[in-house]
Amino acid sequence: MLTRCVRRVLLKLVSTVRSAQCSRGRCCTATTEGLDRVRTLLQLCADRSFISPGETNSELFRRGSSCSYGPLGVELRRNLLEQWWHSATGSRTRVWGIKTLRGRREQAACGPRLVEAEHFHQVLQQSELSREQLVQEVSLLLQRSQTVRRDLLQGALEQFVPSLELVNRKLPFGLAETGLCFQPSDPSGCSAEVTQTSLVWFCSPRTSSQWLDHWTRQRLKWWRKFALSPSDFSSSEVPEKQLDEAASRGVKILYNFPWGPESLETLWCRGDAELLHTHGGVRSKLQCRDGRKSVPHVISVGGNMDRGMMAFLSNSFQQLKREEGKKKLQQRKVLKLHPVLAPVKVAVDIGRGATVELRQVCDGLLQEFLEAKISAWPGYLETLPTSMEQLNAKYDEMGVLFTAVVSENTLESGLLQVRSRDTTIRETMHISEIKNFLSKYISAANNF
Amino acid sequence: MLTRCVRRVLLKLVSTVRSAQCSRGRCCTATTEGLDRVRTLLQLCADRSFISPGETNSELFRRGSSCSYGPLGVELRRNLLEQWWHSATGSRTRVWGIKTLRGRREQAACGPRLVEAEHFHQVLQQSELSREQLVQEVSLLLQRSQTVRRDLLQGALEQFVPSLELVNRKLPFGLAETGLCFQPSDPSGCSAEVTQTSLVWFCSPRTSSQWLDHWTRQRLKWWRKFALSPSDFSSSEVPEKQLDEAASRGVKILYNFPWGPESLETLWCRGDAELLHTHGGVRSKLQCRDGRKSVPHVISVGGNMDRGMMAFLSNSFQQLKREEGKKKLQQRKVLKLHPVLAPVKVAVDIGRGATVELRQVCDGLLQEFLEAKISAWPGYLETLPTSMEQLNAKYDEMGVLFTAVVSENTLESGLLQVRSRDTTIRETMHISEIKNFLSKYISAANNF
Repeated sequence: MLTRCVRRVLLKLVSTVRSAQCSRGRCCTATTEGLDRVRTLLQLCADRSFISPGETNSELFRRGSSCSYGPLGVELRRNLLEQWWHSATGSRTRVWGIKTLRGRREQAACGPRLVEAEHFHQVLQQSELSREQLVQEVSLLLQRSQTVRRDLLQGALEQFVPSLELVNRKLPFGLAETGLCFQPSDPSGCSAEVTQTSLVWFCSPRTSSQWLDHWTRQRLKWWRKFALSPSDFSSSEVPEKQLDEAASRGVKILYNFPWGPESLETLWCRGDAELLHTHGGVRSKLQCRDGRKSVPHVISVGGNMDRGMMAFLSNSFQQLKREEGKKKLQQRKVLKLHPVLAPVKVAVDIGRGATVELRQVCDGLLQEFLEAKISAWPGYLETLPTSMEQLNAKYDEMGVLFTAVVSENTLESGLLQVRSRDTTIRETMHISEIKNFLSKYISAANNF
Repeated sequence: MLTRCVRRVLLKLVSTVRSAQCSRGRCCTATTEGLDRVRTLLQLCADRSFISPGETNSELFRRGSSCSYGPLGVELRRNLLEQWWHSATGSRTRVWGIKTLRGRREQAACGPRLVEAEHFHQVLQQSELSREQLVQEVSLLLQRSQTVRRDLLQGALEQFVPSLELVNRKLPFGLAETGLCFQPSDPSGCSAEVTQTSLVWFCSPRTSSQWLDHWTRQRLKWWRKFALSPSDFSSSEVPEKQLDEAASRGVKILYNFPWGPESLETLWCRGDAELLHTHGGVRSKLQCRDGRKSVPHVISVGGNMDRGMMAFLSNSFQQLKREEGKKKLQQRKVLKLHPVLAPVKVAVDIGRGATVELRQVCDGLLQEFLEAKISAWPGYLETLPTSMEQLNAKYDEMGVLFTAVVSENTLESGLLQVRSRDTTIRETMHISEIKNFLSKYISAANNF
């Protein structure tokens, strides 16, 4: 476990949090309130199987690293990556998917490396080696070991030449990839896994700045499309002083977390130096047919989808005060995740009278959803008696879009009750209609 | 590059291959013919962007390791993993998806580990350290480093307890995960990346052997469902002598490659020892409500999807001799990949008269396919003039299911020519019908 690496940062965060009650749906202005909200959200994520329990795991997730995800987190991650992939490769004819190797043999001196512990132990146990020889042998083992990638850029640069044939040497085109990378995560030098997305775009030198603007607009639009509160997502030009050596311009897509803005995606105008370097400076191999026989310039668009998940969860999380008659104050917690991202679209439950017949209806309905690839939750399999209110509260916390309740009435009339997460309204619907209703609801939300 | 690790094995394979012509569609009996067929297939995979070019990369792929994939390989891999995920989690209500961490801090002495090269260099450069201190410091760095996982089992065992709540402590249930692992790949000790699938099934001790049989049947059925020649996939009980320490029974799902059978997936009856060990031997935490309060037994189902890709490519690859009138012998190479797996479902091309209007029709058609998530190939963007025969040969090698050719006639009547990979027959179809035709064709093949 990564305990030591992480606990320090966690303690720092937690120590600044005081118990402050959130009085409205959104309250990111006050710092303590905001941080309290984060704590509540992370607890909810663990309780509702988005992430595995444990402070260390929560803190990894909060910091934008990959963590151990539970069933709902896995679905949310899959949905997010699927949307990214579709937006990168599906909607354009000029972007190709690739998958490059993670570990590679390189001469680089620094960075994370993959070694076999046995090989080191064998060297360390050789008592006949002098101190000098020992240093030499260990250095050699390190040198021969595989490096582990920090990002997906290098793989795409290497795939540039094999891809030229696919595009008849015509610019512009792009290479897309998603995968886990190891990134330095704190001053102690621990590397953390991050789910990266990468689009590397090759274009003619004179258009590169325009393409950077184009992709910035596209990416910001994409993030905002799935947001409940789009204004929390923004873009910001990287100041000239902070530019990478290779880059002539940079833009960050930011999310305004309660503890401050953090970068979800970074776009760089990288010029042609790295591409040339990767291919040994052989210009003739790299030239494209854009009229001038120039070496293309590279735009890189790299995203962190673990932090993206945290951003969407944070953005869609609402705490709503609700007075119920003379009862005590109730706080309703809802994850209003976008219909396309919500890990569970519909929960199937049983009302009063949990008979064998009702269960059979539920089984059939669930099967129908799963075959139509509508992610469904088999709530009726729970054996613990729960009130409908408790169930709704649970499903709201899970971000479940709709709850379908099968009751005795369904057996007679075919009608069931369908409750919406967003309106909390219950509608009566015929059992034969619900699948189409859900499909249309989700695809309408996607095209909005 | 992993050159040294790999070249030896490659040379061994290639040296046994003599030039033998394959006279029928399938010819795996003769060894040299079979190996020649493998070489032809690997060349085709590189030429048609399933894998990146290069002998090292081809050999990684042939050996069942993850390699650098091109656009078609990426799609095939996505389709295969998607089908696996759907079969594991989608069709059952008792299997939950998880994602566990790849790198973890453990006390294990052996296995691949992730280290920061800088930390080692810092120690090696400290000239004041004695030989003994140096050994100590290096050992300490190794001990503190993260291990990198060899398979996904351990993560699932750890997630057993948090998952109990989801299932109300009721057996049986399963945890599914896919991800890259590092596996020892040859005697030199190089670790290679492998795309693993894992289903870990928890059941009552008395039913575990039945569940092993159940999952063996299910898995074999799954592999055969997508095969052109299902009999190349088989299952085989692991002999008692070869059983793991922890396992009481084991079954392998094998594919009969031209160089011999290799394991695609392995199922083990693992008992409860590892589960108990993972949770510190605390039985009360692990007990389930199956009437006897027993600790569940574990069935693990672990697959290698890189080798699965190689198996399906090998299985679907046909070389057909064709005499064309008095012309010389033509050899037609086809990848008859299952419609669900085929990375490209339809290629859109232009017949005679490449006018602006025809391109606009193609653009529209392509967009329609992409929106319906039918993977389409923009053949009309190719600028090099090619004969229809050459095009068909190329698409057959890519495993493209259908080729739609838009011509001047389409502008007048809305009709286009649609050629099938499997029958090579051309049909005339109205442009408004083709999307539905393809959707129905693919889903019919899926439900077959």
